[in-house]
Amino acid sequence: MDEVQNHAFRLRREDMPPVKKRENMEEIKKIMLAHGGGGRLMGDLIARMIVPKFGDGQSVQLTDSAVIDVPSDKICFTTDSFVVQPLFFNGGDIGKLSVCGTVNDLAVAGAKPMALSLSLILEEGLDMDILEKILQSIADTAKAANVNIVTGDTKVVETGSADGIFINTSGVGVLMDNADLSFARIKPGDAILINGTLGDHGMTIMSQREGLKFDTPLSSDCACLHELTQMLCENCGEAVKFMRDPTRGGLAATLNEVAKSSGVNVELTETALPIDKTVQTAADMLGFDLLNIANEGKVLAVVDAAVADKAIDLWKSHPLGKKAAVIGTIAETDDSPLVELVTKIGGRRIVQTPYGRELPRIC
Amino acid sequence: MDEVQNHAFRLRREDMPPVKKRENMEEIKKIMLAHGGGGRLMGDLIARMIVPKFGDGQSVQLTDSAVIDVPSDKICFTTDSFVVQPLFFNGGDIGKLSVCGTVNDLAVAGAKPMALSLSLILEEGLDMDILEKILQSIADTAKAANVNIVTGDTKVVETGSADGIFINTSGVGVLMDNADLSFARIKPGDAILINGTLGDHGMTIMSQREGLKFDTPLSSDCACLHELTQMLCENCGEAVKFMRDPTRGGLAATLNEVAKSSGVNVELTETALPIDKTVQTAADMLGFDLLNIANEGKVLAVVDAAVADKAIDLWKSHPLGKKAAVIGTIAETDDSPLVELVTKIGGRRIVQTPYGRELPRIC
Repeated sequence: MDEVQNHAFRLRREDMPPVKKRENMEEIKKIMLAHGGGGRLMGDLIARMIVPKFGDGQSVQLTDSAVIDVPSDKICFTTDSFVVQPLFFNGGDIGKLSVCGTVNDLAVAGAKPMALSLSLILEEGLDMDILEKILQSIADTAKAANVNIVTGDTKVVETGSADGIFINTSGVGVLMDNADLSFARIKPGDAILINGTLGDHGMTIMSQREGLKFDTPLSSDCACLHELTQMLCENCGEAVKFMRDPTRGGLAATLNEVAKSSGVNVELTETALPIDKTVQTAADMLGFDLLNIANEGKVLAVVDAAVADKAIDLWKSHPLGKKAAVIGTIAETDDSPLVELVTKIGGRRIVQTPYGRELPRIC
Repeated sequence: MDEVQNHAFRLRREDMPPVKKRENMEEIKKIMLAHGGGGRLMGDLIARMIVPKFGDGQSVQLTDSAVIDVPSDKICFTTDSFVVQPLFFNGGDIGKLSVCGTVNDLAVAGAKPMALSLSLILEEGLDMDILEKILQSIADTAKAANVNIVTGDTKVVETGSADGIFINTSGVGVLMDNADLSFARIKPGDAILINGTLGDHGMTIMSQREGLKFDTPLSSDCACLHELTQMLCENCGEAVKFMRDPTRGGLAATLNEVAKSSGVNVELTETALPIDKTVQTAADMLGFDLLNIANEGKVLAVVDAAVADKAIDLWKSHPLGKKAAVIGTIAETDDSPLVELVTKIGGRRIVQTPYGRELPRIC
């Protein structure tokens, strides 16, 4: 009797409802709310668009979390969300930026990047083609940086509730043995280095928003900096005191943090600052101070003055350090710490922490 | 001469522009774009609202990345973004959810949660009071779960470009020695356990959105599950084959993944499913199948049948496991793997992976 009932009630595979037309997933050209619902459509999105891009099929783990082998008892952990507008800009896009940004946060902490997570917040209606391009850019950048995307998450919100796509990447890295970086180690006499020109990312984004065109087009400096930071730590060891990527708030924000946290004065030499002429023109036209403008491929390092020349030579041997320069020194403070710019004509101007209003959604 | 010039050009502290009225930061009642600009306003937001909440002042690190001591050579890494609407619901809020969600992803992977990152995407105009409440909830939940928030990020987008607040948390945990969890270890005969009632989170959110009221108000099950998972691993060792928190897509999505990934059939016993009466009423009124509905405080475990009773007794000794039950078994598959529900009257219904359309923005 029970068995008869079981057969009677049993819905066989061939009785299952046929796949509806709107479920023909390859034909879906735009993101729908259901892509974030945790069901078949999300599974398809992940299996068809995300997994094939990240890794060789073996390193990809599709569970909600990933297990990582750590060859150290100290790891470095960081996170960053990216909301840049426009999504695509000269020199990069939100995907490249989201890999570089997190790789760089690990790099300047003296860590070797190991693994990234990738969390997407997608707006309903986002073109699949745009998503595809961004994912490809993420994959290409991660591969070039030799870092794996090991775990992820996808959410979808209604049209109008987000702006196309927001990306979060978090990262895990292993601290390098020869890195000993902290504000506390910065002392008067130390040299301040940068690996190239200032403000390229911010001015590229702003010019694109404002519709400015130049004969020499501006291009974001968006790049992964871990090779430059490793080079420095491996060759100069503990003579490297501190590193930071001056992104939002630019050099001004970073150096003010150095002054305040280390209890020192910072003296910048205006004539030593590497600045691209077109970037300067754009900044002048739009009324920006390049010291406040975001960089996405720059690392500032504070090193013992004795190794400054060696460090600059090292950086100049790398494509991302061709315009590396010593841009200032750390000085004693007799009062509350200050950042000062020694101007072209020998005057001094206090460089303040920017208010923050300059450049919304620059990264 | 140089010295005279230096003095002439030197802008002294007392010459610096006075703080403008709009920069009186404590009086700012709403989030402004400049709060995400990397400058003074962002620094104030972080220093005044974020840092005091997370930790004792010592464990808080304000750099872009944090160093964590890992007592193991294997760590677990996970990420989740949270976009739930409404931001506050009975039983929780987006802040509590964002801690529990990531703690749970680590927990069901067999890891002890160690550290979380916190990344905020704020909409310009968000009330500071709302942000304050959410941050407090994050802090309280993290403290109760004994997990530190160690690094973070804050972005602000224009009014209309996000919906109040989106939160990403990523997490790092240490794999427990006695956890050996994988789809591959699931075998016919294994028992399927759950720690309590189904669909509470999803139906609470949906009822609140639809304005439904009940004599017994619905409440989200939102909770951190690491104590339940540790309890199981420590006491039942390798008899625990697999664990997962059935969030988006509910039990149906999780069990279909089990069937497909392990190459087995799953048999659920309808009469054994713990279901709250009011939640069932809400689901019936709104036309939902509770098997498809998100949980945020439930862990599904597949264990060797020999330890099933012991596991249930363990869970019942914990406040979050009072209604724990064995809800099904793993069976051989003679064809492509299936999830079947043995109904109250002994029939069988195939449980499919939901399409994903049911519940947008449930977490």
